[in-house]
Amino acid sequence: MKLYLDCIPCFFDQAIRAGRIAGADEETIKRLLDEIGGMVRDISMQTMSPEVGRRIYGKIREVTGNDDPYKEIKARSTQQALALHDRLKREIRESTDPLLTAVRIAAAGNVIDYGIDRQFDMEEEIHEVMEKDFAIFDYDPFRRRLAAADSVFYIGDNTGEHVFDRLLIEEMGKPTVFVVREVPVINDVTYDDAVCGGLDSVATIMSSGSDAPGNILRLCSPEFMRVYDSAEFVISKGQGNYEGLSEESKTIFFMLKAKCKVIAEDIGVEEGDIILKGINT
Amino acid sequence: MKLYLDCIPCFFDQAIRAGRIAGADEETIKRLLDEIGGMVRDISMQTMSPEVGRRIYGKIREVTGNDDPYKEIKARSTQQALALHDRLKREIRESTDPLLTAVRIAAAGNVIDYGIDRQFDMEEEIHEVMEKDFAIFDYDPFRRRLAAADSVFYIGDNTGEHVFDRLLIEEMGKPTVFVVREVPVINDVTYDDAVCGGLDSVATIMSSGSDAPGNILRLCSPEFMRVYDSAEFVISKGQGNYEGLSEESKTIFFMLKAKCKVIAEDIGVEEGDIILKGINT
Repeated sequence: MKLYLDCIPCFFDQAIRAGRIAGADEETIKRLLDEIGGMVRDISMQTMSPEVGRRIYGKIREVTGNDDPYKEIKARSTQQALALHDRLKREIRESTDPLLTAVRIAAAGNVIDYGIDRQFDMEEEIHEVMEKDFAIFDYDPFRRRLAAADSVFYIGDNTGEHVFDRLLIEEMGKPTVFVVREVPVINDVTYDDAVCGGLDSVATIMSSGSDAPGNILRLCSPEFMRVYDSAEFVISKGQGNYEGLSEESKTIFFMLKAKCKVIAEDIGVEEGDIILKGINT
Repeated sequence: MKLYLDCIPCFFDQAIRAGRIAGADEETIKRLLDEIGGMVRDISMQTMSPEVGRRIYGKIREVTGNDDPYKEIKARSTQQALALHDRLKREIRESTDPLLTAVRIAAAGNVIDYGIDRQFDMEEEIHEVMEKDFAIFDYDPFRRRLAAADSVFYIGDNTGEHVFDRLLIEEMGKPTVFVVREVPVINDVTYDDAVCGGLDSVATIMSSGSDAPGNILRLCSPEFMRVYDSAEFVISKGQGNYEGLSEESKTIFFMLKAKCKVIAEDIGVEEGDIILKGINT
């Protein structure tokens, strides 16, 4: 997905949010916005949003001196999600269509706003989301592709959400590669986060080799590309990965909540909608 | 009110919106954002938002070549509001507290989003808003100041809204100066707009002498300042004027809807709240 003009103000919003989470004072954040302001001219509308995001979060690290502003938020999200793992696993097993329930739980994992530092009942939120209808729900082709495949290639998104991904991976029961970011960017799942969430016990964890907050193939490592190219199909979580992969020719199932108008319009749904959308199925 | 960091992304949002309304293509709007990006470094956090807004809307005029992007929207809003004038006037006259009803109508005028180019039932919207409770409602000091005053100094905001201001001016029944912007900026009311709305028949229309989308005294003309200084009290409509005047030492009654989080926090209310707030009463 190419960049939309409306992504540009959003980069400034994200920088303010990340700067505050990094504990930077207002003056430092203003300096950050000055730098990003100077970058606008160099942003081509042919770029993909996570490519700009990568430069912006690099600038955030540089200006705030904090390499991982979301570290504590990520650790807390993982702990909260892990505390639910066994109960949700039982729920999946006892449901009439365990795969469907696991898909719903994994999608619900993308809905939770992990960046928001408020007390919330994660279990209640998961169950609320599980009741919702998907605006696009390509479950049948998904089930067919899964049944025919020997392995799964699964690109993660947020930390915390990855524990719900783990439940789906456990339910699918096939050898799985779980893809993480090379370095911390926003609250996206990295190798260490994945291990903390127990993903190493159910999947081979693999870095994309990129620090972009979304999977852009051009920025990924040759090792990643070898495994990606040989993958039978891909599960891609969240907006950032959609932005990077929406125009690829592979069979990809995008599972996400459309959290902004731009993505919703690109997909053809309403802001706030949840989707499981397959391409090239 | 000084600038908040969160105003900076909003400047980019506003530029996109105004650029689109001006009919500029995406490439031209991108050029506009490039220019505004370069301006961020020069924005001091000690400035007031309408002062930056003034420079940004100047840039919009320059880059799009359109001196008044909101011209048609303004004309349409005025016509729609004028069509309601007589009915609302009757409603004021027939109510148990005509001044209160006129205040409610004038406040409702600030709630309507005139910038949105959709079909809507203005009458229905006005009545919906009139039913709402104000989060701050300094009606008693307002009534007292008005009763004691020989004249009213009234600073307008949006075009269309000014017809509802006219109803309040008619009801107050005192010699009134109605202040407009010197040149078109956003959909703010100018001299010509005020005349189209019939304000010349109920008030002396006066320009602030400034092209800022909010009344910043430092930017106003000496003529304006002479009348402002001698005013007994001021009615100030909308956010932009609040931003410019919130720390002044004069008796001012702000009548507005808090349309963004930043203003709401500064006032101490929730986003979306309607207020009639007096200072130095």
